Amino acid sequence: MRIDLNSDLGESYGNWELGDDAALLAIVTSANVACGFHAGDPTVLRRTCDQAVEDGVVIGAQVGYRDLAGFGRRFIDMDPAELTNEVLYQIGALDSFARVAGDRVRYVKPHGALYNAIVHHEEQAAAVVEAVRLYDARLPVLGLPGSVWLRLAAEAGLTVVREAFADRAYTPQGTLVPRRHPGAVLHDPSEVAERCLRMVRGEPITASDGSRLHIEAESICVHGDSPGAVRMARAVADRLSAAGVDLAAFAAPER
Amino acid sequence: MRIDLNSDLGESYGNWELGDDAALLAIVTSANVACGFHAGDPTVLRRTCDQAVEDGVVIGAQVGYRDLAGFGRRFIDMDPAELTNEVLYQIGALDSFARVAGDRVRYVKPHGALYNAIVHHEEQAAAVVEAVRLYDARLPVLGLPGSVWLRLAAEAGLTVVREAFADRAYTPQGTLVPRRHPGAVLHDPSEVAERCLRMVRGEPITASDGSRLHIEAESICVHGDSPGAVRMARAVADRLSAAGVDLAAFAAPER
Amino acid sequence: MRIDLNSDLGESYGNWELGDDAALLAIVTSANVACGFHAGDPTVLRRTCDQAVEDGVVIGAQVGYRDLAGFGRRFIDMDPAELTNEVLYQIGALDSFARVAGDRVRYVKPHGALYNAIVHHEEQAAAVVEAVRLYDARLPVLGLPGSVWLRLAAEAGLTVVREAFADRAYTPQGTLVPRRHPGAVLHDPSEVAERCLRMVRGEPITASDGSRLHIEAESICVHGDSPGAVRMARAVADRLSAAGVDLAAFAAPER
Amino acid sequence: MRIDLNSDLGESYGNWELGDDAALLAIVTSANVACGFHAGDPTVLRRTCDQAVEDGVVIGAQVGYRDLAGFGRRFIDMDPAELTNEVLYQIGALDSFARVAGDRVRYVKPHGALYNAIVHHEEQAAAVVEAVRLYDARLPVLGLPGSVWLRLAAEAGLTVVREAFADRAYTPQGTLVPRRHPGAVLHDPSEVAERCLRMVRGEPITASDGSRLHIEAESICVHGDSPGAVRMARAVADRLSAAGVDLAAFAAPER
Repeated sequence: MRIDLNSDLGESYGNWELGDDAALLAIVTSANVACGFHAGDPTVLRRTCDQAVEDGVVIGAQVGYRDLAGFGRRFIDMDPAELTNEVLYQIGALDSFARVAGDRVRYVKPHGALYNAIVHHEEQAAAVVEAVRLYDARLPVLGLPGSVWLRLAAEAGLTVVREAFADRAYTPQGTLVPRRHPGAVLHDPSEVAERCLRMVRGEPITASDGSRLHIEAESICVHGDSPGAVRMARAVADRLSAAGVDLAAFAAPER
Repeated sequence: MRIDLNSDLGESYGNWELGDDAALLAIVTSANVACGFHAGDPTVLRRTCDQAVEDGVVIGAQVGYRDLAGFGRRFIDMDPAELTNEVLYQIGALDSFARVAGDRVRYVKPHGALYNAIVHHEEQAAAVVEAVRLYDARLPVLGLPGSVWLRLAAEAGLTVVREAFADRAYTPQGTLVPRRHPGAVLHDPSEVAERCLRMVRGEPITASDGSRLHIEAESICVHGDSPGAVRMARAVADRLSAAGVDLAAFAAPER
Repeated sequence: MRIDLNSDLGESYGNWELGDDAALLAIVTSANVACGFHAGDPTVLRRTCDQAVEDGVVIGAQVGYRDLAGFGRRFIDMDPAELTNEVLYQIGALDSFARVAGDRVRYVKPHGALYNAIVHHEEQAAAVVEAVRLYDARLPVLGLPGSVWLRLAAEAGLTVVREAFADRAYTPQGTLVPRRHPGAVLHDPSEVAERCLRMVRGEPITASDGSRLHIEAESICVHGDSPGAVRMARAVADRLSAAGVDLAAFAAPER
Repeated sequence: MRIDLNSDLGESYGNWELGDDAALLAIVTSANVACGFHAGDPTVLRRTCDQAVEDGVVIGAQVGYRDLAGFGRRFIDMDPAELTNEVLYQIGALDSFARVAGDRVRYVKPHGALYNAIVHHEEQAAAVVEAVRLYDARLPVLGLPGSVWLRLAAEAGLTVVREAFADRAYTPQGTLVPRRHPGAVLHDPSEVAERCLRMVRGEPITASDGSRLHIEAESICVHGDSPGAVRMARAVADRLSAAGVDLAAFAAPER
């Protein structure tokens, strides 16, 4: 059994620090590195890519809307052709640092409002798919199972990788319980770790209504934006390792 | 005899248009394409790269300070390490579009205040050299003869390309007459064209004090930000071609 | 009979020029001056306010989404409380220049995608109303007749001013024919001028289906982003003046 | 005896938090609130102004270069006329929130590289003075004793307020020991507090070479960007209060 652990990294900006990248890079196997449009500046990207390569973590492009003030968390009703170009710009910029660090960008994962938009928004989903296809059609894309984004990516011939969320409650239909609902976010590290192990083993987890639910995913998303988040990520990694699960990136790094 | 003609392109931004890129691309052999930090947005970069490749014009990265409001024309006293990273970011971003267009970034030319700063500023010059070296040490760099920038680039093993300015008066020492001085900018297309031909032939031109001056350059910079500028660029290209000068990029495009 | 003529001004940014502000300021009675979030930089705002006061034109705040790259023309799904604050910021910034010029901001008109959004979007409309109310509840607001924006503004006790568009076709229901439809934009200056006169006189104009339509408005919006637009604005102003219509701002300038 | 305590506040931006504003507002008497050009977004400004007024703290405009990526800490060689306009823009924007909170901007303190530049840079110092004079010539300005900034402000008829730094070592000449030198920053709260008391009492402090130095200041700058910084600010305020010093803003808030 094997699974990938991915996390958002490189989200500091200038004088503003965010997240404990060093701690996360010692835990995860894939780093979704921000590309400067919603978070991350060139120096942050350089440092994050250098550390990722040093730690054997695969670098992915965490692309988003150009919205520093909103951290990419606000839907922008962009022209799809412009969105394709904005994504191309971001991947290329990050790739510069990945290459200087000795590897390269190995996958793409949209961020925030863009991630959520392309679960349903056909035009924007197609626009991001087109950007990946143009940049390098061999790059896998990471996203929500059942999303328009992964469907269109597959149709375009891209490799799709599905992710589960370690600390989020699921509805019986397999979608995430919205954050504003009670119980939407799980807080007990050992419960979360156990639940991740069940997902990896193909065993059902408990949905928000108590029913049993199968989640199929090749990667699990963990967070690192608070000391508690880092502890939880560590608990997940430790539990999986102890159970003999191989923590390995879905995209192989440069050798 | 051969010479390269280079010009700044891709300097529009969103709803704001600047310069007649289509006209210039029919004249020049090398396009210094803005990279989004002082001018140019992703859609402008995409379009400019596509047209450049279509017209057989070589794409270079016109890198600058991150200063849209100032169009990169204001010196910023940046940390050199951060400057290296900002330049890496810009080259990578532009390269994305150059590659999608079927070619790639083939040289680097700093813009505006950065161009002027690194004529003398050792740390910033070294920072830009380091960025090019890290990105791809085979990329030539374009700049002012006698600048610290070209000296350090050569010392780092980069190929240096010297440029002359078609429409600017020169001091007897071979530096540009500052723009605020009378006669700093030449306005007569046929005089400018004739002068360019003299430079290409290795013949002396007349300096601002009437003395004779030899300018050695592998490229001539022309402008396209006004109808008059385009006419002058056209006059230069026509005069050189009529005299049997081969207008050819110093960096070969992809074949 | 009297009418106000309003136009978008101050939309240049740094090195990028847009629109013929000087020509428009000689024609209109109210200047919707951009505030720096989607267009306009501090120096542009200063110059525009100075010229407006010199020409006796009333200054209004053309507030928009923070989106320079998109010129404020893309809907952003912002938190309403944040939108209120962004509008407060913009009005205050512009007011600084209006006051230095000897007057002050005298009304508010949302721009682009924000203008369009708050025709229907209750939360964003209420957010902009709240900003005006907090800044100065005596400021009139300018907008589309029938919009949620004007309805909520009136309910909040603000003075509402309705505008008509000089060069746009109307549906039989009195809404604008979308730009992508044929005939959406009128191009004949004398026809447009005549039509404006009919609106001012309370006479029906011809809707897109040939039916007769009454448009009630206290202001007419004209454009200045091309030589043709300026000619049309001039034609409208001349026709109205010749017919004895008093061109006067709805908001009185400082005396 | 009385003294003002000032601190930089409102420096968070979007999703990025910086400093413990709530803790500082319970300690200081004057809040230098960032204005959005180098730090602070509209929602941060609104919240900071509201809390300042609630806590009886006077609001000042912390104006800086337009440089989010560099946090305003990099010198920008701006045109002085543009700098005047950028400062006017910032003061007006902040004033919007100060007024909504029930007070108004009551002084101006430049930030970061601008603060440092106008210690010596005549043109930029004059540009900031001009902005304050144009906005409201009754606004006091806060700065370094002996700076060109305070000299030109005084010559322009503005009220100048001198500040001392609680935790910085001074040279025998009364200038700050550069941060890169050993001993430049003091870390012992009780030593710092005692030193502040001596300054307030007009007693000499010990300069970096052991000599005695008199510092004349109407305000002391304290920091709040770390738990240790807040403890030190608290220690300074407590020591001064215990010694009977009246902690009071130099500019009176609205009553």
